[in-house]
Amino acid sequence: MLRDKIPSGKERLYKTIGLAVVALITIFVILNNTGVTSSNGLISSITSSVTTQDSKTADGLKQPAPVSPKKYSGHKEKATFVTLARNRDLYSLLPAIRSVEDRFNRKFNYDWVFLNDEEFSEEFKRVTTALISGTTKYGVIPKEQWQLPDFIDKEKAANTRKEMAEKGIIYGDSIPYRYMCRYESGFFYRHELMADYEYYWRVEPDVKLYCDIDYDVFRFMKKNDKKYAFTISIKEYAETIKTLWETTREFITSHQEYINKNNMLDFISDDEGYSYNLCHFWSNFEIASLDLWRSDAYTAYFDHLDKSGGFFYERWGDAPIHSIAAALFLDRNQIHHFDNIGYYHPPFHSCSVDEDVRMKNKCDCNPADDFTWKSYSCTTKFYTVNGLTKPKNWQIYAD
Amino acid sequence: MLRDKIPSGKERLYKTIGLAVVALITIFVILNNTGVTSSNGLISSITSSVTTQDSKTADGLKQPAPVSPKKYSGHKEKATFVTLARNRDLYSLLPAIRSVEDRFNRKFNYDWVFLNDEEFSEEFKRVTTALISGTTKYGVIPKEQWQLPDFIDKEKAANTRKEMAEKGIIYGDSIPYRYMCRYESGFFYRHELMADYEYYWRVEPDVKLYCDIDYDVFRFMKKNDKKYAFTISIKEYAETIKTLWETTREFITSHQEYINKNNMLDFISDDEGYSYNLCHFWSNFEIASLDLWRSDAYTAYFDHLDKSGGFFYERWGDAPIHSIAAALFLDRNQIHHFDNIGYYHPPFHSCSVDEDVRMKNKCDCNPADDFTWKSYSCTTKFYTVNGLTKPKNWQIYAD
Repeated sequence: MLRDKIPSGKERLYKTIGLAVVALITIFVILNNTGVTSSNGLISSITSSVTTQDSKTADGLKQPAPVSPKKYSGHKEKATFVTLARNRDLYSLLPAIRSVEDRFNRKFNYDWVFLNDEEFSEEFKRVTTALISGTTKYGVIPKEQWQLPDFIDKEKAANTRKEMAEKGIIYGDSIPYRYMCRYESGFFYRHELMADYEYYWRVEPDVKLYCDIDYDVFRFMKKNDKKYAFTISIKEYAETIKTLWETTREFITSHQEYINKNNMLDFISDDEGYSYNLCHFWSNFEIASLDLWRSDAYTAYFDHLDKSGGFFYERWGDAPIHSIAAALFLDRNQIHHFDNIGYYHPPFHSCSVDEDVRMKNKCDCNPADDFTWKSYSCTTKFYTVNGLTKPKNWQIYAD
Repeated sequence: MLRDKIPSGKERLYKTIGLAVVALITIFVILNNTGVTSSNGLISSITSSVTTQDSKTADGLKQPAPVSPKKYSGHKEKATFVTLARNRDLYSLLPAIRSVEDRFNRKFNYDWVFLNDEEFSEEFKRVTTALISGTTKYGVIPKEQWQLPDFIDKEKAANTRKEMAEKGIIYGDSIPYRYMCRYESGFFYRHELMADYEYYWRVEPDVKLYCDIDYDVFRFMKKNDKKYAFTISIKEYAETIKTLWETTREFITSHQEYINKNNMLDFISDDEGYSYNLCHFWSNFEIASLDLWRSDAYTAYFDHLDKSGGFFYERWGDAPIHSIAAALFLDRNQIHHFDNIGYYHPPFHSCSVDEDVRMKNKCDCNPADDFTWKSYSCTTKFYTVNGLTKPKNWQIYAD
């Protein structure tokens, strides 16, 4: 027999090679089954191109199989995107969702919570779910959180809207806008769909992210003990918050225990608290800890503000309220400015003036449009009062 | 000696295991070095998180390492993106580039050729290269291809521009626009940087792709023998091409040999060639074969048109010229309409009216904006003359 002709030494070699090949194949199979597969579709093309037979729109047998995205399987924080929207906002929301998915979420697949004062349409749910790589959840806002509270004098509120309309103050005559500001100020974080989460990233229609975010920003928040992060800061319309600061001062006086020892009062007041300088973080973008709003301090603060009626007798926005609370209740080191994300919400742009940052993160924005260091922005003050290093060349983009 | 204590049978086994382990490690290393690594950053996080030490902007040790994109290493066609741009177009070009990278090129890493009538600035090269996943190339257009040819009567050309300006025809008084139309019609494919390629995808500033393209469109073109593909078709301004058709008819009469037996004359003429119906593919988007333009037929056709002076005595666009050539010289089956890409160039949108297509491809557009089936579009005619099946519900979006 031929076998007898093989010397035992060689026989051993052959067995070894044979076993090595088996090991090789085993490893290859294991790697494929643990998601550690080719990100360029090489492997999937072997399987998929056999099954894809559509030769009209995509000649399955002759073209590479679709390069399908892989699910993220690394560590994740208890975090979610959250969007307050109406059914009619669907198509102005899609580019914003795509931008967030493109630049960040397709890599991490975080959940997305949508809240509405009425039921979301099937189309809204179907289309947003199709675009989002994480789990989508749709909630309705409890009626009592989206109406005039009993303690509000309807006539007084109506007069305010009339006056503001005459003065041409934006949204001055809007009731829903006031419901929205009050909801974002005191209720969104109490919605049952938000109960499981520790952090949230607020997204609104028509926004855009300009740069790649290749790391988990929620993990960044947690590991660096950041509780509130912003991209753009600006001054509020004084007309809309005439009594907000005096109402806040009443609270501070009666609740010294809630004021953080290392607070950031110097960001929101230029005279040690006597007056509010109107500086606030633009809350259409927020990456923050839900615990901040769930705290006793903020709960008491919101109730105090709400009872005063300013949401309806004036037109208090959630931005100055969130900002004042963050500045008073947090350690100044817990508030973070993201210069590397790049953000747009009409009409303001955040586009790092540091070209290294823009190139490293593939930002598709024009630094000439950046609002960060302009005089009407408060971010220069944020860097100054916190002794942070401003990006090189920032003066070139200031006015 | 211990060695003697090991029975030869076991010794063989140990050697085998040892070799298997070596094989195992080898395979693992090879896989990592050929891009066949985890697409979810699992592997890179092992290496990267040790090296990333920046704890201020990204706490390297505590947050997952950056999820870095993997290079595509599958089969690729000889294809490139091509953009004619000026240095001042840089920032209006970036969102267009990002859109193409996001929806298609980050998965396939095709090259990108930029052409300009003057040297590209270092900033232009640096920033575009940072955003593009493929190799970028920058070329200058030969002077003789970007000026009035000797055979053009300067005074006659000037009079045309004056007349068109008075009639308020868009770009009617522009010389550079005419250089551009002539260059896109007869020269871009002859640039030395285009020599290595078989297919190109034309991209212009301010455009956007609305849907994911998870397969290689260039391979789709090749395997399906498509030579010209479009997303939007429309009717040309008659004023700008008064003598284009009669000049084309002269060519057809004298060059019957170039006319394809299965041509698509019925798309560009409603009276069997007597007159041009103004239908053309909107050439700011083109995925096409360079061989079409390099052919004897097109070379002769372009020369005939160029000599007639219509680029300067009128304001011939490259769109009707490319479209007429494709319709006459190609087999009608070699012309393709992409309904699944989704495309925007102000002011027109291509957004599939088929929701299944939009959801499958994560399109972030509003079908209500779709121009495809509107009366001023010629795509309905394209489907009709070619006996193609229109998407379901197309009538709902027609006007």
